[in-house]
Amino acid sequence: MRGNSFGKMISITSFGESHGPGIGVVVDGVPPGLDFSLDSLAAELKRRAPGQVAGTTARKEADLPEVLSGVFEGKTLGTPIAVLIRNTNQRSGDYEKLKSDYRPGHADETTMKKYGVRDHRGGGRSSGRETIARVIGGYFASLVIPSIEVKGFMMKMGPFETEEIPKDLKEDFSPYYFPIKGKDKEIRDYLLNLKKEGESRGGKVTIVARGVPAGLGEPAFDKLKADLAKSLLSIGAVVSFSFGLGEKMADLEGSVISQDRASFGGIEGGISNGEDITLHVTFKPTSTVGDKAKEGRHDPCIIPRAIPVVEAMVKLVLADHFLRQSAYEF
Amino acid sequence: MRGNSFGKMISITSFGESHGPGIGVVVDGVPPGLDFSLDSLAAELKRRAPGQVAGTTARKEADLPEVLSGVFEGKTLGTPIAVLIRNTNQRSGDYEKLKSDYRPGHADETTMKKYGVRDHRGGGRSSGRETIARVIGGYFASLVIPSIEVKGFMMKMGPFETEEIPKDLKEDFSPYYFPIKGKDKEIRDYLLNLKKEGESRGGKVTIVARGVPAGLGEPAFDKLKADLAKSLLSIGAVVSFSFGLGEKMADLEGSVISQDRASFGGIEGGISNGEDITLHVTFKPTSTVGDKAKEGRHDPCIIPRAIPVVEAMVKLVLADHFLRQSAYEF
Amino acid sequence: MRGNSFGKMISITSFGESHGPGIGVVVDGVPPGLDFSLDSLAAELKRRAPGQVAGTTARKEADLPEVLSGVFEGKTLGTPIAVLIRNTNQRSGDYEKLKSDYRPGHADETTMKKYGVRDHRGGGRSSGRETIARVIGGYFASLVIPSIEVKGFMMKMGPFETEEIPKDLKEDFSPYYFPIKGKDKEIRDYLLNLKKEGESRGGKVTIVARGVPAGLGEPAFDKLKADLAKSLLSIGAVVSFSFGLGEKMADLEGSVISQDRASFGGIEGGISNGEDITLHVTFKPTSTVGDKAKEGRHDPCIIPRAIPVVEAMVKLVLADHFLRQSAYEF
Amino acid sequence: MRGNSFGKMISITSFGESHGPGIGVVVDGVPPGLDFSLDSLAAELKRRAPGQVAGTTARKEADLPEVLSGVFEGKTLGTPIAVLIRNTNQRSGDYEKLKSDYRPGHADETTMKKYGVRDHRGGGRSSGRETIARVIGGYFASLVIPSIEVKGFMMKMGPFETEEIPKDLKEDFSPYYFPIKGKDKEIRDYLLNLKKEGESRGGKVTIVARGVPAGLGEPAFDKLKADLAKSLLSIGAVVSFSFGLGEKMADLEGSVISQDRASFGGIEGGISNGEDITLHVTFKPTSTVGDKAKEGRHDPCIIPRAIPVVEAMVKLVLADHFLRQSAYEF
Repeated sequence: MRGNSFGKMISITSFGESHGPGIGVVVDGVPPGLDFSLDSLAAELKRRAPGQVAGTTARKEADLPEVLSGVFEGKTLGTPIAVLIRNTNQRSGDYEKLKSDYRPGHADETTMKKYGVRDHRGGGRSSGRETIARVIGGYFASLVIPSIEVKGFMMKMGPFETEEIPKDLKEDFSPYYFPIKGKDKEIRDYLLNLKKEGESRGGKVTIVARGVPAGLGEPAFDKLKADLAKSLLSIGAVVSFSFGLGEKMADLEGSVISQDRASFGGIEGGISNGEDITLHVTFKPTSTVGDKAKEGRHDPCIIPRAIPVVEAMVKLVLADHFLRQSAYEF
Repeated sequence: MRGNSFGKMISITSFGESHGPGIGVVVDGVPPGLDFSLDSLAAELKRRAPGQVAGTTARKEADLPEVLSGVFEGKTLGTPIAVLIRNTNQRSGDYEKLKSDYRPGHADETTMKKYGVRDHRGGGRSSGRETIARVIGGYFASLVIPSIEVKGFMMKMGPFETEEIPKDLKEDFSPYYFPIKGKDKEIRDYLLNLKKEGESRGGKVTIVARGVPAGLGEPAFDKLKADLAKSLLSIGAVVSFSFGLGEKMADLEGSVISQDRASFGGIEGGISNGEDITLHVTFKPTSTVGDKAKEGRHDPCIIPRAIPVVEAMVKLVLADHFLRQSAYEF
Repeated sequence: MRGNSFGKMISITSFGESHGPGIGVVVDGVPPGLDFSLDSLAAELKRRAPGQVAGTTARKEADLPEVLSGVFEGKTLGTPIAVLIRNTNQRSGDYEKLKSDYRPGHADETTMKKYGVRDHRGGGRSSGRETIARVIGGYFASLVIPSIEVKGFMMKMGPFETEEIPKDLKEDFSPYYFPIKGKDKEIRDYLLNLKKEGESRGGKVTIVARGVPAGLGEPAFDKLKADLAKSLLSIGAVVSFSFGLGEKMADLEGSVISQDRASFGGIEGGISNGEDITLHVTFKPTSTVGDKAKEGRHDPCIIPRAIPVVEAMVKLVLADHFLRQSAYEF
Repeated sequence: MRGNSFGKMISITSFGESHGPGIGVVVDGVPPGLDFSLDSLAAELKRRAPGQVAGTTARKEADLPEVLSGVFEGKTLGTPIAVLIRNTNQRSGDYEKLKSDYRPGHADETTMKKYGVRDHRGGGRSSGRETIARVIGGYFASLVIPSIEVKGFMMKMGPFETEEIPKDLKEDFSPYYFPIKGKDKEIRDYLLNLKKEGESRGGKVTIVARGVPAGLGEPAFDKLKADLAKSLLSIGAVVSFSFGLGEKMADLEGSVISQDRASFGGIEGGISNGEDITLHVTFKPTSTVGDKAKEGRHDPCIIPRAIPVVEAMVKLVLADHFLRQSAYEF
């Protein structure tokens, strides 16, 4: 009831404070007998690790995942898979002054209002570090739906903007996931400058899911679009969700949209129709600005590191609905 | 697992096809001893009934709710409250031709792909008529949180557009909920014209929730914004969700938004902060256009009738989180 | 959270007070395309209807089920199936004196302690009449697992007692379900005498489930035996549950039981092993005794009418676990 | 859906195989601000640790719990509490021969039938070692309901048998929890002899919960007795559950039991009535017998070590229902 679990057939239960002993997750509902690769898991985690973005420093030690259960001799057992990542990079120093440092747009103050107590050394449960649990979950979800590709792109950040989604989802647009080739140096310089100024930026992300079979999603409350919206809004910095034509729908006449099935972003009546699913989210700029933002560990824009997180959440929803549908097709 | 229930502490379980015997709902988790008024419930339902909007015809018989359980001598019993509304206005005639009439943007085709069978006489579970269940649920949710006001406004529809939310939520803007006074006649004429042309329109709706105590929402997956997003995206025609500054966040620098707490729309770190909560959704135009749209029962714009539905969903989420928080404050 | 729903993949949500407008149920998770027969459903309901047992009077009107949703042209739609049964046989007369009539062993007093309010005209939610919802659910569960037979037997009631379970589960032992042929007249007389004396009896019931595939049940909390125990203890008058050798296990040495697999009642490690599942429950005698018990509608022993209810609960659990397992075998 | 979580308002999610890296649990829903003591938690765990019973050897290293999250400066944070216990005492040696060693009454064979794969080095998820998670959960549950005492007693084991429950629940009957003083030496000798002979015994356990407020439990499916039954039947070796007079009810007339409220074991209509709750379970003898049973780590009777486990499960159910009820009393 405390909302630390997500998913029904495949679920993740996340635990850990940013400045406690570690962050972990229990992934339950992964079918037995699937091939597990620690290297692939670590690679996914590396995509969201600090230091991917210009101007931020990598943690001295990588986020090394330890698998505590559910895997044996390289195969999933069908039992809960617990994965733990120790917090190694804790700041030393004067935490006392953080006790009453309530950052706007963060959970600092609302956590106190809710619980009356908090681990003031950092964001606690509301820290971006909690998203490690999601990336781990997304890795296991991808084992369930190996034929579905899920890719996120940074469509807008500061002056960089496009509406063009790459046709080939296999192409690599890291580290910034901006889908126009040749812009990485410019983006890097822009971010370095933001960093220098203690400024931050949000932006827009589009996620494409290809290969989703028709029939996923339920017609009433668990519409595929509803569960996807929840999954993405559960990410701290996400402030909007839309799919298909999204907000543009408010400007169009019915006769126009009904002629182009792509308007619906792969979801009709809440159920996948077999086409590409296209989702759009907005990230707010991190509200850490000014001198504090100039410290090495702060991202002037978190989108590049958030891309594997949004992909993971979408994979979890799709794998969950895939298993739900599978239950009734016996 | 079929997604026909919504909510945890207070939940609605919806049932009924648009052309079956009726639409109903079981509302569970309503505390005992609350005052129930059939008139108030009927009044809420009347707001979403057909015929509210220019150009559409009212059903001959009103949607009269029958309370089957959970209420005794004018008080809630704490037991499940079942409410049934008979389908009285079924079209007679040749349903056979509808068997393969797959409307774009509707669930007709995806339902067949999912289930292999459907009640082809209408939208079935995906019909807008299912939202009756939500309005009923919202009525009972409002009994749980009587001091919270939830109001929806049509901020944009066709040429009508504003960003101004009324200060006084008690003011009545029905039947169109456009928050600029004196526009009703113009809107009416616009809708009549749409209707005549067999055209349709979507638009934008903003919902304000006032009086929400700080501390509602959970820091990880059940963030208040996440559950609100799911609740609203579970409505058929909704294609986007945002809160606070929403998509505008992509254009702003962190230094700007961190100075104005209103940017966050009443939710920080996923938890209510005690301020007004502001939510925004986009409705797509109904994809029923052309000659068929000229029939009496089709709305050229469903927003006016959808306003009580979005309000109901928001009330359900807030009541649910209120009860969740209450559990731990003993 | 109010515990009016049972099951995960196939679930029943029960509603209705014994003296309100009716009793109903929403059965969700029934796969689409299954053949529905109103006659078969009515036949199941008739088995638990009053008047089956000597000395009790039949209701004047039968419990006629009305299917409100989820079925179309004789097939399940995959959508929630709501079924309503009106309460037609309400006693007229002075309910006021019942207000403070707290029957021992019933929920009368505990309901007041819990809710502070109740429908004092009868047992409300705690009435045996609520089990109608379960029998309906069981009927739909049996559509999901047609090759599994579930049969209950009255193994002990007053002087009637046996340990012999019939080999052929298809044999009909109604109306008393005592598995020794030729005893019905004796049982009838015994019950008539109990009734005359205003006395009541409980007894023991054994349920056999045959044809359960190996592999149902989960190794930790949702062991098959745990979910079966819950399902049966959720019936008002049930005061014990065991499986296989049950309480006799306390008298046996490990070397004995490990040689006879039948000791385990078809469940090893919480998971079905493919053998017959044997379950045992004890019913308490109804605590309505004395003059009140001599009224026509009171059963001197409820077991005969409870047999279809226990069968239904077992079917629901087995169908639920069958669908759970099906989800992961894609 | 894999049944590795238990509870709604306070829940435990258990993970870990007996011969994997460790056993752990995520306890969610513990209210914030409660005093946590690692020593008290360790003391509870020590009660179920091997070596408590005559004839068995203690693990060389104790089961030392590491708290990974949810506790800060000696207080619960209201966030998920993860606790990990490493598996330190793994047998070395030839696991290969265990691959096809399917022990009767264990999950070895059914696990293969269910998953098609297993960690054959031990009981995996079905090992008694998994109950560590439950004891940890029970400790945190007891923080939620500090005024409720829950105590288990071994009422029968081999020749030792009593029906007398101690009046003073605070009295210490460890290590065997047999509630007649002065019998420990005899029991010890009996167990040593069983061990020498490679034999095993089950028995009967009664649990008393004192101080339970009236009003806990729900009238339909989540009756207190139903949830307690599930909680206890979810323990591997438990084969029966009853409450109050239990199976004796089958021998009594209604007029008898309705005169003595103690017949109902503290639960009427599925809801606690404020009296002592008395529950009874039967443990089967462990099916490890013969030469294998003579090894040091095997218990000839697991009841003494299982007492803290049954107490923990009962505490979890009571705390859960306490919080559920609290939600609606705001």
